[in-house]
Amino acid sequence: MVGSGAAGMTAASTAREQDHEASITVITEDKHVAYSPCAIPYVIEGSIPDFRSIVMHTPEFYEQERGIKIKTATKVIAVDMDSKKLRTSVGEELPYDSLVLCPGGIVFVPPVEGAKLPGVFTVHNLADGEAIQNALKRVQSVVVAGAGVIGLEMAVAINRLGKKVTVVEMFPQVVPRLLDPDMAVLVQHHCEKKGIEIALSAPMAAIRGKDKVEGVVAAGKETECQMVIMATGVRANLELPSMMGLDIGALGAVRVSATLQPYRKNRLVKDVYLAGDVIMCENAVTPGPTMNQLGTAAVRQGRVAGINAASGCASYPPVVAPWVSCLGEMQVAGTGLSQSLAEYYGLKLVEGRVTGLTRARYYPGGKSITVKMLADQETRKIVGAQIVGGEEVTGRIDWLTAAVLKGVSADEFVASFESAYCPPTSMVKDVVNLAAEALQRALNG
Amino acid sequence: MVGSGAAGMTAASTAREQDHEASITVITEDKHVAYSPCAIPYVIEGSIPDFRSIVMHTPEFYEQERGIKIKTATKVIAVDMDSKKLRTSVGEELPYDSLVLCPGGIVFVPPVEGAKLPGVFTVHNLADGEAIQNALKRVQSVVVAGAGVIGLEMAVAINRLGKKVTVVEMFPQVVPRLLDPDMAVLVQHHCEKKGIEIALSAPMAAIRGKDKVEGVVAAGKETECQMVIMATGVRANLELPSMMGLDIGALGAVRVSATLQPYRKNRLVKDVYLAGDVIMCENAVTPGPTMNQLGTAAVRQGRVAGINAASGCASYPPVVAPWVSCLGEMQVAGTGLSQSLAEYYGLKLVEGRVTGLTRARYYPGGKSITVKMLADQETRKIVGAQIVGGEEVTGRIDWLTAAVLKGVSADEFVASFESAYCPPTSMVKDVVNLAAEALQRALNG
Repeated sequence: MVGSGAAGMTAASTAREQDHEASITVITEDKHVAYSPCAIPYVIEGSIPDFRSIVMHTPEFYEQERGIKIKTATKVIAVDMDSKKLRTSVGEELPYDSLVLCPGGIVFVPPVEGAKLPGVFTVHNLADGEAIQNALKRVQSVVVAGAGVIGLEMAVAINRLGKKVTVVEMFPQVVPRLLDPDMAVLVQHHCEKKGIEIALSAPMAAIRGKDKVEGVVAAGKETECQMVIMATGVRANLELPSMMGLDIGALGAVRVSATLQPYRKNRLVKDVYLAGDVIMCENAVTPGPTMNQLGTAAVRQGRVAGINAASGCASYPPVVAPWVSCLGEMQVAGTGLSQSLAEYYGLKLVEGRVTGLTRARYYPGGKSITVKMLADQETRKIVGAQIVGGEEVTGRIDWLTAAVLKGVSADEFVASFESAYCPPTSMVKDVVNLAAEALQRALNG
Repeated sequence: MVGSGAAGMTAASTAREQDHEASITVITEDKHVAYSPCAIPYVIEGSIPDFRSIVMHTPEFYEQERGIKIKTATKVIAVDMDSKKLRTSVGEELPYDSLVLCPGGIVFVPPVEGAKLPGVFTVHNLADGEAIQNALKRVQSVVVAGAGVIGLEMAVAINRLGKKVTVVEMFPQVVPRLLDPDMAVLVQHHCEKKGIEIALSAPMAAIRGKDKVEGVVAAGKETECQMVIMATGVRANLELPSMMGLDIGALGAVRVSATLQPYRKNRLVKDVYLAGDVIMCENAVTPGPTMNQLGTAAVRQGRVAGINAASGCASYPPVVAPWVSCLGEMQVAGTGLSQSLAEYYGLKLVEGRVTGLTRARYYPGGKSITVKMLADQETRKIVGAQIVGGEEVTGRIDWLTAAVLKGVSADEFVASFESAYCPPTSMVKDVVNLAAEALQRALNG
C-alpha cells in the first residue's frame, strides 16, 4: 500500500481481513496514519479538544494488532510494474504481489502573487491543522479563499475563536456546484449572521505583504489580514501515477476500472489498484465520470482495493456521493445532482422545495429544516437533493441517497416511501415527504 | 367523512385540494379534531406544555380556511349505501356522493376483574390524556398494562413525574412482535435504570379494589397502585363497518382494495372509502395482510381516500410500516419484519447487529447506537431493521425503510449504499453500513 489516509489504511486493514497470512506494508510520506482530516476545522474551533484525539490508531497499533508494517516519512520514487518492485526514498527496493496506490490529493493553490508568503496555509493534513492552530494564536484577522465546504467550515471555526474572517469566492455563490443558488443563500446568510464577511464573484487576485501576509486583493478590493487559508479545491496527486505512465482521465485524475485497476495506454494494468482522491469514479445518476473526493469514498474504495489486492473480488459501483457539513448550528447536506451539475450533464431538472420542522410543530426545540429535491423532467426520477437544517440532516440525506441510487421516481416516493414518526423527532408527514409532494406537483406542471 | 383523527382530517383536506367546489362534511363523536394522540405521553411528562398545544386546528379553522363543515359530538347511526344517505345521532339525514369512514380503533381492554374501576384509564384520545393528567395529581404509584410502545412511553412519562411505575406484560419481552428479544433487552434495561419496574410473562389477572383501584395481580404477584393504564393494544373499531355489512378480514379489521374501498360479500363497494386504524393493509415484504395502526399510515391512507373520494385516482401501496418512539434519552425504531413476525410468515431470517456511535469516535457527545438488520436467508434481501440509540435514529430507520421497500440485498447495500459523513453527525462508516457488512458476513455463514 502506498499512502496512509483513509483509503490506504482501509485497504491495508481490509486486505488483512481477507488474507491472514499475507505480508502487508504501508509506505507513507506522512508522519501520522489513520487520522481524519475532515475533523481539522472542529479541532480548530475547539469542539474536539486536540489533534491527538483525531488520530485513531498509531503505526504501532497496526503492526501489533493487525500485522501491518508501516514505513512513515518514506516516499515511493520508482515502480517497475513488469518486475513488480518499487524503490523508496530511503533506498529500499521492495517486491510486491499487489500494489495499492492511495497518494491522495493536493490542494490547488492559485498561482497568485504572494501565495508563498508566510501566513498562507492549506488545510490538508494534520501538520497543516497544527500549523494553523499555532499561527492563529498571533492572528486577529483571516481571509479564507474558497467558500466550498472546507472553506466555510474553517471560516466558522475561526469566527468562533473571535477572529475576524472574510471569505472570498470566485463563483457568485457559496458551495458552488454542490448547492443550488437558493440553498446556498441560506448557508451564506447563516454565516453572515455570525459576522463572517463573504465576498462572492471575487477570485483572489493577489496576496499582499512583504515578509508575511498583510492583506488580500479580490474583486478589486483589498482586505487586511494576517493569515490566508487556501480552501481552493483538491486535485488528484498525480506525481506517482504520471511517473508510472498510468492513463489520466478527462477530470485530471486516474482512470480506473470497476475493480479500481488503472490503465496504461488503454490497457488494464495487472496487480495495481488505486483508491481515494487520486481517481475518477462513475456517476450513478447519469453516465460519465465524476470526482468523489470524500472521506467516505476513500473508505469504500479502500475496502474494494484491499479485497482485490488480497486476491478477493469486489467492485466499486457508480456513485451518488452524498455529503454533509456542520457549520455551527446549521447542518448542510447534498446528494446526487444539483442544478448546476445537471446543466453540465445536459439534463433538465424540476425541483420541489419545502421548509418545515425537525419535530412536530407543537414539540419544543424543533429546528427549521429546508429540503429540496430534484427530478429529471423526462423520467421523473429523483436525481438529487439538498438539505439545510438545524438537526437530523444526515439520516435524511442518506434516505434520499437510497432513492437516487435506486432510480425512484417522485411519484413512487410520494406513494410508497413511508417514514417513521414520533413528535420529538419528526412531523407526522416528514419534511422529506412534503418536499416529494412539492416535487410531484412541480413535475405535473 | 366520518371520523376526525389523522385519517379523517387528512382525507377532508386532501379532498378539498382535489376539488375546490365540493361540499365536504366531517362527522365526529370527538369534541376535538386534528390533534396528535401520539403526543399524549409527551404532554403527560411535561415535554409539551399542555394538551391545547397538540390541537393543530380548531373546527372553525377548517370551516373558514378550507370550507370543510365539522359536526362534533355526532355519531353516524345508519348508512344506506344504495340510496347513498346516512343518518346521525342528532336526527339528521345526509346524502353523500362519496363517503370516507375513519372510525379509528378502540383500546382492547382485557376482561379482567376490576377493569371498570375508577382509576383505570386507556390512552386513546385527548380526553383520556386530560383525565390521566388530572388523576395523576392525586396518585403515587401506577401500573401500566402492556409493554408495547405506548405502554413504555407512558411509563417513562409517569416515571419522570416522580411516581412509582410498574409495567406488566404478558409476553416475555418488551415491545413484543416489533422488536427482537436482544433489542428489547436494551430497551428494558434503559427503562429499569430509570427505576421503572417491568414484569414480563405477567399477564394482568385482576385489578383489585373496592370503589377504586388498589392494586394489580399479574403472574401471581400483587402490586399496589392507585392507577392502571391500559396500553393493551388497539383493535379496529368495527361498529359502523359491521352495521354496514362490510367484509372483515382475518386480522379483525376491514378488508379494503388498493383504492381503500371496502367489500360487501366479496364485492367492491362503490363510493365508500376507509382509512386509518380500522383497515388491514398489504405487507410490502411478504405477501399477506398486516395491521399498520400508526399516525403516519393514517395520514397516508387519508390522502389516498381523500383523492379518490374527490374523483381523483390514487392507491395505497403495500407497507413496511416504520415506527419510532422516544423513551427519555433513548430512541427506539423499527421497520419491516422482526424475527417473530418473520416466523409468523414462515421466513428464515439472518441478522447482523452492530453497536457504534452517532458521531465520530473522537467527537464529544456521541451517543451509543445499535443497529440490527435482518435479511431473508434465501433471497439475501433486507426485510427489516431495528435501531436503539441516543440520537439521529429516525433518519436512519427511514433510510433502511427505503432499502426494504426496494428489495435491496445485503450485498447491494454493502457495495452501493453510500452515506454522508461529518465528524459531528456520523462515523466515517456509518453504523448502518457496519451493520450491513455484519449482515453480509452472517449470510455468507
